[in-house]
Amino acid sequence: MVTLSRDELHVSVVDPVSASMNFLNEIASRFPAAISLAAGRPFDEFHSVTDIDKHIQVYLTHLRERGLSPAHSRALLTQYGRTNGHIGDLIARMLDVDENIQVPAAAVMVTTGCQEAMVIALRGLCAGPDDVVLAAEPCYVGLTGAARILGVEVVGVPESDDGLRPETVREVAAAARARGKRPRALYLVPNFANPSGVSLPVPVRRALLAAAAQEDLLILEDDPYGLFGLDDEPRPTLKSLDADQRVIYLGSFAKSYFPGARVGYLVADQPVVDAAGRHTLLAEELSTVKSMLTVNTSALSQAVVGGMLIDSGFSLRTANQAKIAFYRHNLATLLSSLQRYFAGTPVRWNSPSGGFFVVVDVPADASEELLETSAREHGVLWTPMRFFYIGGGGERAIRLSCSAIEPERIDDGVRRLAGLLLR
Amino acid sequence: MVTLSRDELHVSVVDPVSASMNFLNEIASRFPAAISLAAGRPFDEFHSVTDIDKHIQVYLTHLRERGLSPAHSRALLTQYGRTNGHIGDLIARMLDVDENIQVPAAAVMVTTGCQEAMVIALRGLCAGPDDVVLAAEPCYVGLTGAARILGVEVVGVPESDDGLRPETVREVAAAARARGKRPRALYLVPNFANPSGVSLPVPVRRALLAAAAQEDLLILEDDPYGLFGLDDEPRPTLKSLDADQRVIYLGSFAKSYFPGARVGYLVADQPVVDAAGRHTLLAEELSTVKSMLTVNTSALSQAVVGGMLIDSGFSLRTANQAKIAFYRHNLATLLSSLQRYFAGTPVRWNSPSGGFFVVVDVPADASEELLETSAREHGVLWTPMRFFYIGGGGERAIRLSCSAIEPERIDDGVRRLAGLLLR
Repeated sequence: MVTLSRDELHVSVVDPVSASMNFLNEIASRFPAAISLAAGRPFDEFHSVTDIDKHIQVYLTHLRERGLSPAHSRALLTQYGRTNGHIGDLIARMLDVDENIQVPAAAVMVTTGCQEAMVIALRGLCAGPDDVVLAAEPCYVGLTGAARILGVEVVGVPESDDGLRPETVREVAAAARARGKRPRALYLVPNFANPSGVSLPVPVRRALLAAAAQEDLLILEDDPYGLFGLDDEPRPTLKSLDADQRVIYLGSFAKSYFPGARVGYLVADQPVVDAAGRHTLLAEELSTVKSMLTVNTSALSQAVVGGMLIDSGFSLRTANQAKIAFYRHNLATLLSSLQRYFAGTPVRWNSPSGGFFVVVDVPADASEELLETSAREHGVLWTPMRFFYIGGGGERAIRLSCSAIEPERIDDGVRRLAGLLLR
Repeated sequence: MVTLSRDELHVSVVDPVSASMNFLNEIASRFPAAISLAAGRPFDEFHSVTDIDKHIQVYLTHLRERGLSPAHSRALLTQYGRTNGHIGDLIARMLDVDENIQVPAAAVMVTTGCQEAMVIALRGLCAGPDDVVLAAEPCYVGLTGAARILGVEVVGVPESDDGLRPETVREVAAAARARGKRPRALYLVPNFANPSGVSLPVPVRRALLAAAAQEDLLILEDDPYGLFGLDDEPRPTLKSLDADQRVIYLGSFAKSYFPGARVGYLVADQPVVDAAGRHTLLAEELSTVKSMLTVNTSALSQAVVGGMLIDSGFSLRTANQAKIAFYRHNLATLLSSLQRYFAGTPVRWNSPSGGFFVVVDVPADASEELLETSAREHGVLWTPMRFFYIGGGGERAIRLSCSAIEPERIDDGVRRLAGLLLR
């Protein structure tokens, strides 16, 4: 009888971040009545099962109008297909309408969620054992997970309260080089980052592009929350400011449509030149990696997303007006509840201008033990910030999320948190 | 302006097998009128777009009957979900009905096609730089691709005309160990392998299980073609013969349902024990790896496959009677056409007892140049067998496929092939 020893499995299996996330899920299931300020998923009630067939039908009509035969349409939805997907043109059009990003459809690869896009980009770029990726820290756990699978080292670039500083990026890149590493790319979330909530001012975005050019880094720009600002101030993506194709843009429909479709994408319009001088686009070269990971993205899911894009006139911003209003209201509620219960106390928090998350500095060790106490005795869940640091940090801070909660429960959740922290 | 050099990208991007597959696709697109005995995809006309909504509705009805609220069902189809998927129980039931495999639902992980299942299994098992995987050679390119992404070495175990020999497995494992490697698993396709078409006799299956036990190897059993035998002779999977949980079973719905769903699975009921003596199942441990690759498998695609399983009474064998008859007829036609045109010539071929593929030994170098000549001058496409060898081999052999072709074109295709080979 085979018995495997857990410590003989790959390091990604026993990853401490995963263990932490499992702990969070376990706490949530043990205390189902607790108010969750931990869950960062989108709010359930915006999703509709009837949208699925509706949007498939819209997509099929679109294919018919483009002159595809029924047999061709059927093959698009049911067969193996083009590795990079069949809705790249629709995504390119949406990026033009919503984000002022102009790229050819061939620069778009449709992926199994944004997570696969991160794996593919890291795999393609990090060729040797000394190739590393820089990442704003605290860092989204999906990026560190993708790197862990591939054995790619992530070098944290400490974020200030105002976000990433270009000079820090340069210092960290130089230090990595000094120890024999080759920094290939910088990962960042410019708008309302997960977990910090911080957004980058436009001049900083430009300065980061310049710093990346000086350090010969590509930028991996991940923007799942960009739609959900507290105001309508324009927040140009780095990709839209990118004059020399330095940015690989990572996209997700999880928040703007629904997560269960598992459709994301990457935009990689960088020219790649081979020994014979032939040019292709990076997205085309990366299709080999995609074919070895998942072959294709679910053709059904692509059709559903394609239909939604057509139905919305290629504007997620237009299609998401109700969600935008909801998340704005929730974040404003969370911030005003923090003010109500914590003003004048040692507890401090930041004030993100949008998105799902707020970071709270707490006068205690924000440990798993404290979280368990919080759940059991105070009925409120949150996420320890230490989960988001690569080599230690965030010990006295927590992340609050307001995306998956009914607005009328937020104030009670913060009140319960005050019960824990101001004992 | 950024320009990337192709040879600075990861080796998986510039993989020679991928280049070969691209060459094949390119030839096929340049000579669209050629008869393709190269394409190994399932036959288009079995797929139906209307099945999609039908099977989603069946699945929703099933959830309702199980007592799930509409909100809960909606969340299953649209939210982030359990990493290992929401139809593991239905797959376990199908495996019991069709394959006499009894495993708990918790041993099943739903994946984004079988390709992701291969990546996840290899990633979990191959922990250190000396961990290698053995594979029957000629080898399915998906397995070598998955290994390439992860930097895992694949050691070929030469297949005889009758398939894999247990003593060869032991010799190759011992030789790998002698050069400091740790063989972790053996990958094989027991029924009508791609590309060789060969199936393993039942006593050999048992002997392979014994050899794997002696060499401390797990077996990665991949069985996409098992339903499609020329006869109804039972061909027990190694997993059904596996008394000591040595087999990780890799499954696909690409041929038994449709590829565009991108739903596969792995069955890993091996106990894993940690330092504290706590037991879990390998499929549960591997969920960390899955979460870092794609988070979840498309919840929509899972619902469609789930509905199909319910609709078929959990028997793919029953649901696939028309496909089974079609592929049988096609393979029998291909074999009789080979007899018609090549009997008494230097050309030799094998006689698989099922599946999609036949290997033909040809009196010529089966090169990409010959393939181009074949397409241009004779109007027929095939696959060079050299694509399926890890370190050279198969230079004078080709793979013919009969799965994606109208039955009435097969004889003409073989006649054209005779025009090329018997000039």
